[in-house]
Amino acid sequence: MTRLVLKFGGTSVANLERIRNVARHVKREVEAGNQVAVVVSAMAGETNKLVGLCREASALHDAREYDAVVSSGEQVTSGVLAIVLQDMGIDARSWQGWQIALRTDASHGAARITEIDGGTLIERLEQGQVAVVAGFQGVAPDNRIATLGRGGSDTSAVALAAAIKADRCDIYTDVDGVYTTDPRIVPRARRLDRIAFEEMLEMASLGAKVLQVRSVEMAMVHGVRTFVRSSFDDPDAPQVGAGGLPPGTLICDEDEIVEQQVVTGIAFAKDEAQVSIRNVADKPGVASTVFGSLAEANINVDMIVQNISPDGRTTDITFTVPEGDYERALGVLEEQREAIGYEAIEGARDVVKVSVIGMGMRSHAGIAARCFHGLADKGINIRAITTSEIKISVLIDSAYTELAVRTLHSLYGLDG
Amino acid sequence: MTRLVLKFGGTSVANLERIRNVARHVKREVEAGNQVAVVVSAMAGETNKLVGLCREASALHDAREYDAVVSSGEQVTSGVLAIVLQDMGIDARSWQGWQIALRTDASHGAARITEIDGGTLIERLEQGQVAVVAGFQGVAPDNRIATLGRGGSDTSAVALAAAIKADRCDIYTDVDGVYTTDPRIVPRARRLDRIAFEEMLEMASLGAKVLQVRSVEMAMVHGVRTFVRSSFDDPDAPQVGAGGLPPGTLICDEDEIVEQQVVTGIAFAKDEAQVSIRNVADKPGVASTVFGSLAEANINVDMIVQNISPDGRTTDITFTVPEGDYERALGVLEEQREAIGYEAIEGARDVVKVSVIGMGMRSHAGIAARCFHGLADKGINIRAITTSEIKISVLIDSAYTELAVRTLHSLYGLDG
Repeated sequence: MTRLVLKFGGTSVANLERIRNVARHVKREVEAGNQVAVVVSAMAGETNKLVGLCREASALHDAREYDAVVSSGEQVTSGVLAIVLQDMGIDARSWQGWQIALRTDASHGAARITEIDGGTLIERLEQGQVAVVAGFQGVAPDNRIATLGRGGSDTSAVALAAAIKADRCDIYTDVDGVYTTDPRIVPRARRLDRIAFEEMLEMASLGAKVLQVRSVEMAMVHGVRTFVRSSFDDPDAPQVGAGGLPPGTLICDEDEIVEQQVVTGIAFAKDEAQVSIRNVADKPGVASTVFGSLAEANINVDMIVQNISPDGRTTDITFTVPEGDYERALGVLEEQREAIGYEAIEGARDVVKVSVIGMGMRSHAGIAARCFHGLADKGINIRAITTSEIKISVLIDSAYTELAVRTLHSLYGLDG
Repeated sequence: MTRLVLKFGGTSVANLERIRNVARHVKREVEAGNQVAVVVSAMAGETNKLVGLCREASALHDAREYDAVVSSGEQVTSGVLAIVLQDMGIDARSWQGWQIALRTDASHGAARITEIDGGTLIERLEQGQVAVVAGFQGVAPDNRIATLGRGGSDTSAVALAAAIKADRCDIYTDVDGVYTTDPRIVPRARRLDRIAFEEMLEMASLGAKVLQVRSVEMAMVHGVRTFVRSSFDDPDAPQVGAGGLPPGTLICDEDEIVEQQVVTGIAFAKDEAQVSIRNVADKPGVASTVFGSLAEANINVDMIVQNISPDGRTTDITFTVPEGDYERALGVLEEQREAIGYEAIEGARDVVKVSVIGMGMRSHAGIAARCFHGLADKGINIRAITTSEIKISVLIDSAYTELAVRTLHSLYGLDG
């Protein structure tokens, strides 16, 4: 007996025809003898409509009331899918966040899940009933509905899978898995059969928009095997592909990945801008002043590079910010010129961060050197470099994005 | 300190502009020093859209899932109104049925309220917070959302008023009160300043569609003073009219009505059909067979007239059914011809029931005689008569509806 959580996003439940298609996926899993809980988003467009209503009502709307309004979208989908399943002869029941209960903290509008009581659901699942759970919502300590923020349904699904001790969480989405890189840029990109949690976390946060970063973090922490597959697959097609699974990508513990590649994928993030502060005094507290003032202005800083000072007196600091915050970041630093004490600020808008990701890096030397060499061979100048245990990121001119990604994709043997 | 419940229906909250108008009504009451709870319906059209979605999902949809889907409409309105009120500087908070808790029985889709815990709301009201309550919904014993059936928001409002011991329940609707009869038929119809619960019950059930019958019953049982007024009034207009109230009709205990009229109003119900069973055996059990078989076929029977048998052996039974059930009623009686034992069935579709209503009838003789005389004077034939303590109903040909209503309206001195 396998216990599964199936999650379907807004485009997968955009209308009744698609909801019926979702129901056929559920039916297939039930008929295969599995216990099934389903997590659904609002029908595509509904959440935007409800958010618009709140904004029109007041520019500064109360997050608690916003949550009451916006969560109604998932409530509708869960009820409608339960009706469709019953119509197909499947015992099913919808569950709102407060009915489970899926408890969150008090951060209305972007709440975090604190606790899920899986007991009642497990009981129903064991009786053979399908649980259709409204995603994106829970109940806050004040007994009010709280939403988890955009993309929260992925997190709902993974958290629910952990709470009911599911064997797998299947994320049905509009792509059929996680690729070695964006197939629109590299036609020879391959779908990965498996990817380790840590790698997926880097892929997700670096711009591969398959899964919300928070849901991957949660899957990693709780060890929830998460399977990404296409909701547009024929529900009645044979379900046996690689590793006993249909086409898709399994995000799992690295131990489950028998043939670990050194490099798993190449990610890239456009919409970054580079800021360099030249000849800043190399003394304690400077970095704190720079990044503290940016944080106060609510500007997220990503890559940060600071070299050893050559003369022991001044150094350069380079970092990236979202492109939309570029002008504002320059303004903040201009204001703080006295406090920071620097000679000049330089920057560039047209930059891209390209990252090479792979668990295998930890045990293989020379991965970074090959990256730099490969890019240099193509005449691509590297503006900045940062690395972590399983990632190498380089900042380059965005005009070279495609060339760099394709070069690295070939270089690490990822071409299909 | 006056505690008020204000109820606004779907047309009054149909869009944000109207919701803002509702908020101005609430604001006026708050600024007058009142404690205010508001009950809202779904935005006009929303409930129909959600019902359509359930029907399309399955012709035989589960009432519990239907309730989860359909109740989302009121959830949205309550949240949006709370946001708009806060934007106007008024402390407000939305409440869903399960949060109050407003408990119902298990009759999903047409649930009856069993209990409302007014404690939490009273506490908030006393702190000066406006409670915006989603109408039409409660929570059933199985911890699932239950809806109260069409028009249930009126019932929510009155039940809530009883639970929080409100001084008055103001029903804001698209008419400005209860009239002596339909003004479209009698231009000289007057708005009543006050009407007794019992009278309103007869008016409501006889076709004056201002308030749901169930809400009037509940108001009568709990003694909730209910005030019907127009939601299209200027919220900032002076609020002092007859009896210290703005234009509208107060439904109240008869003791509160100082100048009790003998006759309060003339109601009429079209869409009735008459069925007469001729020469049926005058023996025990016949009426039971007739009406039992109609009840089994789910046909509501209204007026029932049976005379003393002239010869002690056979008699005639006349009754009315909804016009839409007329053919079906004839079919049922045809099937039961053997069991009932009658000579013939006659009937008529084009009939109307006209009723004269007034608490004063109990103490005034001759009211009925004047009615029959007045109609005879105009050459209107009476097909059947039924009476109660406070009501005389006559069944006549529908061609005479306007003439009969106008005649009776004048006859009892109701013309404005």
